[in-house]
Amino acid sequence: MNIGLDMMGGDFAPLEAVKGVARYLSEQEQPATLFLIGDQQAIEKLIAGHKVDRNHIRIIASEEVIGMHEHPTKALKEKKRSSIAIGFHLLASGKMDAFISAGNTGAMLVGSLFSIKALEGVLRPTISTIIPKENGGTGLLLDVGLNADCKPEHLNQFAVMGSVFSHLILGIENPKVGLMNVGEEEGKGNILAQAAYPLLKENKSINFIGNVEGRDILKDKADVMVCEGFTGNIILKLAESLYEITKDKKIHHEFLERFNFENYGGTPVLGVTKPVVIGHGISKAIAFKNMILVAQKMLDKKVVEQLKNELE
Amino acid sequence: MNIGLDMMGGDFAPLEAVKGVARYLSEQEQPATLFLIGDQQAIEKLIAGHKVDRNHIRIIASEEVIGMHEHPTKALKEKKRSSIAIGFHLLASGKMDAFISAGNTGAMLVGSLFSIKALEGVLRPTISTIIPKENGGTGLLLDVGLNADCKPEHLNQFAVMGSVFSHLILGIENPKVGLMNVGEEEGKGNILAQAAYPLLKENKSINFIGNVEGRDILKDKADVMVCEGFTGNIILKLAESLYEITKDKKIHHEFLERFNFENYGGTPVLGVTKPVVIGHGISKAIAFKNMILVAQKMLDKKVVEQLKNELE
Repeated sequence: MNIGLDMMGGDFAPLEAVKGVARYLSEQEQPATLFLIGDQQAIEKLIAGHKVDRNHIRIIASEEVIGMHEHPTKALKEKKRSSIAIGFHLLASGKMDAFISAGNTGAMLVGSLFSIKALEGVLRPTISTIIPKENGGTGLLLDVGLNADCKPEHLNQFAVMGSVFSHLILGIENPKVGLMNVGEEEGKGNILAQAAYPLLKENKSINFIGNVEGRDILKDKADVMVCEGFTGNIILKLAESLYEITKDKKIHHEFLERFNFENYGGTPVLGVTKPVVIGHGISKAIAFKNMILVAQKMLDKKVVEQLKNELE
Repeated sequence: MNIGLDMMGGDFAPLEAVKGVARYLSEQEQPATLFLIGDQQAIEKLIAGHKVDRNHIRIIASEEVIGMHEHPTKALKEKKRSSIAIGFHLLASGKMDAFISAGNTGAMLVGSLFSIKALEGVLRPTISTIIPKENGGTGLLLDVGLNADCKPEHLNQFAVMGSVFSHLILGIENPKVGLMNVGEEEGKGNILAQAAYPLLKENKSINFIGNVEGRDILKDKADVMVCEGFTGNIILKLAESLYEITKDKKIHHEFLERFNFENYGGTPVLGVTKPVVIGHGISKAIAFKNMILVAQKMLDKKVVEQLKNELE
């Protein structure tokens, strides 16, 4: 199993990426082989200082970096020697089995869609976020920003993809699927939600429980919550800011601590032909380690194959 | 100034409504005259026990109640002797200047739209919610559920109505208006947000500062945040549930305490010809008192007249 890691992505790269790699390798009995893509000299120097087991890594030199604010398509096209471009090249050619970056999110999405491509039958790949439930459980919200405008059939596929991820990766049996909405009853909502409801209701591959409202997001009502990426992105960023604010204000509680995105290790792109995990720009060692673990688990549990079965 | 109060609306009516009235009257030097609409006998009994100054109230008997889960249009039509129907009748006929209820939200909205009607030039009346800012400030988010599907010109009017409310009622000079979106730059977002941006940018009656993201909602970026009612309702209910959850978990902090909706006294319906304030079903005395204060302030500050000037 070869997992590629963009060592140049994120605000604290490559140092925190190396520290994440070191943690991952020291904690795993049978680690994957990690392809570390980035500035060879810088990486060599850092791994020497961080007790990284060289048996499990391969350094792939890249000469360029796609900045956090560069235009994704343009940058990927022009910077062929960037860590992200090389990563997708190795992924598409089969030399790597999964790819991780905390760099330019747009470039990671463009790479996922145009380099390794969507699974046959998948209308729109999607990104999701973990939602900490007040009872200690773990929910999944999707889409969180890849698809700002959606059609009902997109939400229906998000429900299937979310269910597969929730089951295989989060370990939830027969996950309950809810449609994000503004009321409980069927028929409530905007035009999109009204049209999506019957599709979800008739979909036999999911366990649809009906609408979920804003007040249900943090409660144990649905394990998988589907919406278009506009609403989902706003919920995600609001939740992230809540963690920052409570930390700044020194409001401590284990429930609030679970809003720390570092615990979850990035956002997998679901519905593409290989596991791709996108991290937050401010990822540190723990986030990098957890991203590697998510990619490894997606490979172990054959998430892509399962999505293929469900959606092709 | 005559302010009508539905004494039968909400889970704790009429007791908590009476307690709210008592508080309001005891705290105000020059209180408005309150029209208390409801079960006469029950109200008489309660006001006798709660030291309500009878000089400032008038009891209006109603024989019916619209339940929380009744169909709004049907109930308003069939229950002409209900407290909400009588309230709108008195409001429309000019006997009352404002009307407040913590009862059936749908019936209050239907009454606002069809009994007292929208101001000329207002495409869509709207409801808003107060957003506690982390720095202690007070933001306004709208629409929060009256208009699940919107056109760009609706958001543009919400921006104007929100600015007037923010200025006159929340006391914010030249309030900064932000467009809820999934990215910072112009051109980001779903089709609606992309199309609304240039309208807001060119709108000379507002102080538009650009897009605001989920992470900015609780921060001091925009005073007035506009979106369609689908996203807004989900944000509102998520914020409300957060207050409940932190209370249940005994996570105490003054910032979290500010999420208590009781502090704000309900949601005014903006863009209709008279002040209407809708309360939460679980409103207690403080919420009722604050709803009366909001209605009074809307009359004092001539919010409706100002909206008329801006939008006609």
